[in-house]
Amino acid sequence: MPHRAIGIFDSGVGGLTVFKEIAALLPEENLIYLGDTARVPYGTKSVETVQRYAFEAAEFLVAQGVKILVVACNTASAVALPALRQRFKLPVIGVIEPGARKAIYSQNRHIGVIGTEGTINSGRYPEAIRTLLPDAQIFSVPCPLFVPLAEEGWAEHEIARLTATEYLQPLITAQIDTLVLGCTHYPLLRKTLRQVLGSGVTLVDSAEETAKSISQIFTQEGLSIPEYGGQRRFFVTDVPTRFERVGRAFLGAELDRVEQVQIG
Amino acid sequence: MPHRAIGIFDSGVGGLTVFKEIAALLPEENLIYLGDTARVPYGTKSVETVQRYAFEAAEFLVAQGVKILVVACNTASAVALPALRQRFKLPVIGVIEPGARKAIYSQNRHIGVIGTEGTINSGRYPEAIRTLLPDAQIFSVPCPLFVPLAEEGWAEHEIARLTATEYLQPLITAQIDTLVLGCTHYPLLRKTLRQVLGSGVTLVDSAEETAKSISQIFTQEGLSIPEYGGQRRFFVTDVPTRFERVGRAFLGAELDRVEQVQIG
Repeated sequence: MPHRAIGIFDSGVGGLTVFKEIAALLPEENLIYLGDTARVPYGTKSVETVQRYAFEAAEFLVAQGVKILVVACNTASAVALPALRQRFKLPVIGVIEPGARKAIYSQNRHIGVIGTEGTINSGRYPEAIRTLLPDAQIFSVPCPLFVPLAEEGWAEHEIARLTATEYLQPLITAQIDTLVLGCTHYPLLRKTLRQVLGSGVTLVDSAEETAKSISQIFTQEGLSIPEYGGQRRFFVTDVPTRFERVGRAFLGAELDRVEQVQIG
Repeated sequence: MPHRAIGIFDSGVGGLTVFKEIAALLPEENLIYLGDTARVPYGTKSVETVQRYAFEAAEFLVAQGVKILVVACNTASAVALPALRQRFKLPVIGVIEPGARKAIYSQNRHIGVIGTEGTINSGRYPEAIRTLLPDAQIFSVPCPLFVPLAEEGWAEHEIARLTATEYLQPLITAQIDTLVLGCTHYPLLRKTLRQVLGSGVTLVDSAEETAKSISQIFTQEGLSIPEYGGQRRFFVTDVPTRFERVGRAFLGAELDRVEQVQIG
C-alpha cells in the first residue's frame, strides 16, 4: 500500500501548484497527476457538472491504484468532496480545509476569499473558516479574469494589476489582513496581489498546507513510502501540447512525457 | 422539409450573436440553438477534441430534424467543417467563409484577423481570404482574454481597452484597414476595438454575412419556409442559469425556457 502513488487531479494546469508543493515536501512519494484539459475550466460550470467530472477524474486515478486522492482544484473541492469521500474507500483530501486552517491566523479576523464563480458561490470557504473561527468576518469575491490572465502569461502585467485593483477594492475597504487564494492559478499572481494589497495582508496559498495535511495523514495511517520512489506521471484528457507549454510556469519545471487519456 | 428548423451550435453563448442575425434576416424560420456549455470553451482545445465535440453537437441537432447546420463558432468552423460536411447529408455552413467574403473589400489589402488560439493556429481565415484575394497581406493575432472580458461584462471597460491596445499593436503597425472579428464573442467589444483602431478600420463581423449566406442557400435549394414559423428553442449541455444570465448581452434579449441536454 505505501508504494502506491498519490493521485492528484485538477481541471487543467492549476493543480500543478499543489503537485509542486507535494513533490517538495514528500519527494520520495510516487505522484500521478490528471488534468481534465478537454473540459477545463470547472470554475464557470454548475455543481452537477463539476461533480460528474470530479467523479470521472477520481475513477481514473483510483483505477491506477492510488493510496490517496488529492482534489487539487478549489471548485471541485468546494462542490464534490463529500460525494467523493462517500463513493471512494480511500482518503480524499481537498484544498479548502487546509486553506481555511491557515486563514484563521488572521489578527483582525477580517478575512478575504477570492476564487472562481463556482468556488465563491458554494460558500465553502466561509463555512470552513467559521467552523474554526466562529466570529471571523469573511468577504468573498469571484475573480474570473485571473485564470485567463495567468494562462496568458500576464500574471505580472499592468493589466493584471488593474484587474486586481478592480476586483479587490471591496476587500481593501473591508480592511482584511488575510486573503485566501481560493484557486490554484492565483499563486502565480502573488506579486501583483501584493502590489495592490500592500505588505500588511497575508496571502494564504492552500497548496503548501495541503501538502502538510497529506504528510500528517500518511504518518497517522502508516501510508508513507519506506524507500525512494519519486516517480511522477502526468495525464491529460486533451492533446498535451498546451498543458506542457502553459504548465511550465505552474510547476516551475519542464513537463515532458505527458500522456493523453479519455475519461467519462 | 422547409418547415424544419435551422440548427445552430456553438461552444457556449457566443453563437447567439449569429443566432440574432439569422433571426433578424429570416424571422419566419424556426431556429434551434445548442450551446455546449458543459465543455466550453473550444478555443483553447486541440483540433481532435474540438472535432469530436462538433460531431456530437451536430448529431444532436441532426436528430432534431434540422434542414441546415450552422456552425456558429469560429474554432469549430476552422477545424471541423470539412469533416462535418462529409459526415452529414445536409447543408453545413460555418462562419469563416462568410467573414472572408466580407474582408476582401479591403482597400489596401492589409487585413487583420483576431480569434481564439484554435482559430488562429488553424490558418483557415488567411486561407479563405487568399482564395478570394491572392495578394492580400494577412496579419493574425490570437486574443484569448477577449472572451473572458466579454463574459465578465467588461467589454467596454478600461481594462478591455488596454488589453485591446496590447493585442492589436502589431495590426496597427501593419496598417490594416480591415479587421476580421474571428470569434463570435468579439462583436461585443466593437466599441472598444473602434477606440483602439480608430475609424479608418472596417470591422468585419461574420454573423450578418453568415445569415445572408443561409438566405441564399435557401433560395437556391428551395428550403425557405413558405409561411410563418418563428419558433426558437435553446438547448445547453450544462445547467442553463449562467447561459441565461450571460447570454442576454449576446442575444440582446431575454433567454427563457432554455433546456438542458446531455450529448456525447
